[in-house]
Amino acid sequence: VYHVTWDAEAASKGGFDHFMIKEINEQPHGIKETLSRRLDESGKIKLDDIKLTKEDLEKINKVYIVACGTAYHAGLVGKYAIEKFAKIPVETDIASEFRYRDPFVDENTLLIVVSQSGETADTLAALKEARAKGARILAITNVVGSSIAREADDVFYTWAGPEVAVASTKAYTTQLVSLYMIALDFAFKKGTITEEAYRQTIKELELTSDKVQEIIDNSDKIEKVAEGIKDAQNAFYLGRGLDYYLAMEGALKIKEISYMHAEAFAAGELKHGTIALIEENTPVIAIASQDYLFEKMISNMKEVKARGAFVIALAKEGNKEVEKAADKVIYIPKVSDILSSILTVVPLQILSYYVAVKRGCDVDKPRNLAKSVTVE
Amino acid sequence: VYHVTWDAEAASKGGFDHFMIKEINEQPHGIKETLSRRLDESGKIKLDDIKLTKEDLEKINKVYIVACGTAYHAGLVGKYAIEKFAKIPVETDIASEFRYRDPFVDENTLLIVVSQSGETADTLAALKEARAKGARILAITNVVGSSIAREADDVFYTWAGPEVAVASTKAYTTQLVSLYMIALDFAFKKGTITEEAYRQTIKELELTSDKVQEIIDNSDKIEKVAEGIKDAQNAFYLGRGLDYYLAMEGALKIKEISYMHAEAFAAGELKHGTIALIEENTPVIAIASQDYLFEKMISNMKEVKARGAFVIALAKEGNKEVEKAADKVIYIPKVSDILSSILTVVPLQILSYYVAVKRGCDVDKPRNLAKSVTVE
Repeated sequence: VYHVTWDAEAASKGGFDHFMIKEINEQPHGIKETLSRRLDESGKIKLDDIKLTKEDLEKINKVYIVACGTAYHAGLVGKYAIEKFAKIPVETDIASEFRYRDPFVDENTLLIVVSQSGETADTLAALKEARAKGARILAITNVVGSSIAREADDVFYTWAGPEVAVASTKAYTTQLVSLYMIALDFAFKKGTITEEAYRQTIKELELTSDKVQEIIDNSDKIEKVAEGIKDAQNAFYLGRGLDYYLAMEGALKIKEISYMHAEAFAAGELKHGTIALIEENTPVIAIASQDYLFEKMISNMKEVKARGAFVIALAKEGNKEVEKAADKVIYIPKVSDILSSILTVVPLQILSYYVAVKRGCDVDKPRNLAKSVTVE
Repeated sequence: VYHVTWDAEAASKGGFDHFMIKEINEQPHGIKETLSRRLDESGKIKLDDIKLTKEDLEKINKVYIVACGTAYHAGLVGKYAIEKFAKIPVETDIASEFRYRDPFVDENTLLIVVSQSGETADTLAALKEARAKGARILAITNVVGSSIAREADDVFYTWAGPEVAVASTKAYTTQLVSLYMIALDFAFKKGTITEEAYRQTIKELELTSDKVQEIIDNSDKIEKVAEGIKDAQNAFYLGRGLDYYLAMEGALKIKEISYMHAEAFAAGELKHGTIALIEENTPVIAIASQDYLFEKMISNMKEVKARGAFVIALAKEGNKEVEKAADKVIYIPKVSDILSSILTVVPLQILSYYVAVKRGCDVDKPRNLAKSVTVE
């Protein structure tokens, strides 16, 4: 008798309490897979299913990244990476907005769509809309043969493996790795990065897998932080630059599984309204992973702390100064500013997970939500 | 003896309980002033202090609108208007983000900065940053001779009169009118609008003043709606397209003066996470002023209502269908989709005002906030 056991195994919790925490733990492997399948013997990126040449890229004067939910947050990081590395202007848009707003799309447009399932209805509709106007379509998806993979000109698969929990974790980190690889490949082809910086950044990308493992190995500290905020009604996530996009993802993660009303803000916007909401003990999660914005974030932490906030800071190891401005600090291993997103998101996921568990929520199947949104 | 009484008069509450409600009531006048000072005898727009010619505009391939807080929300509407009318790609950015992200700015860039006070620190810094890179600077401000007015190449004054309440109302509506006028002027100069459509739209802009008055005259209905949600801890504001930006402004308004944690969402993003937060009686303010998105909004209202939300809809007069999907409906006078923002914001301001009053908040001087943020 022959049994097909792979799917069943992949879909089992393998000793973990929930799929979500299992999938958080699978991230180092997912990152490694996504990378190693696209690095050739010489250590350079080869984008298997992507036929975009140097000439194609020179024609492209506009990139849109279009997605929903968590994949949209990955797309914001993608904008940052492509603009920084490849110097092409990028606009990241919510699929349900993009498709109705008649954007400037033509034959010189590259549309990158990001969807774990490859079946997200609004993203698929946006893809078709843009293709009809002549755009080149590059899909980043986790599911081989999905509708979005089939409709796209080029496909980049995130090798995350099946994701079962409704709250996306390993799909997001592998989407980030994919977008960094695409940005680096574009930059190298266009000549906007030196070969040295290119190789150096790829090496650093390869190291993120072990660093994510290190964060996971220290989950107990994050669990203690979760204990301290588990009864809060509201929380605020702050960041600047790249960290603002991570703040959005952190807030979404805690919202969807723990039903705590968390909202993300660009830290500089605080004084323009939000700071009015800060009360005694309001949890504020302040992300300070960008060296060039570090002092600005310290100021923002002090501002909210002075109004009574309970400040949980995320910072890179060694940045001890943050301890003066925060009530709790979660450190991530050292990493360059631009790649920090791959590490920063992990404590945010773990924090959400433990808050939800401690609140007695149904972590893997939150109320009102489905895994893939295949209707509009 | 000679007394200068103008300032003192302008700064008095003139019979109103608070500056905020006085300033809400001054909006019809502010809109009229902002418009009439820029319409010549033939009914065409003449942008007094703006020297941008047809040739200048043809050189411009990118517009950034940069601002903070409420002015940022006006800038989002400005993006929509300039892209629709003048067909120039616009990116609206938060000033504290823009200045640190090394954006693509050169001599072919137009930077529009929006600031009521003309002294907003991050906006001023963004202006200087962009000017150093060669961008042309157009400022929209309410204060003659302010730092931002002095540093800009071209200035468009919003004739709102002095705004005293911390929560901005009449500055916002006059910023909207200014941005529509700039968009229409650019479009007319560039030839992307017919003279007929141009004149028609200006006429419609002139009618908004009376329509805003009509909304204000019906404030008692909105006060009753405020009574129904005044004890809520959380609220959600939903919109699509232009209405999404109004949802942001509505949420900010209620946050800053009533300390209710309100958050805005692109309605299509609901199913990607936020809908998990909807509980029995959670207030959801759903804005449905865009005819081409009306059916989609009705679906979103039904979704949240099915999960127990208390749905307050904003719709145009005559769109009775909305009553089947909402618990309360606030109607605004009929207006074209693209100009609806000037009307839609008014019930949102009035709602915030009455919620704050009923919660016993210090409406004009909310905790932790200053009128102008002149430090970073």
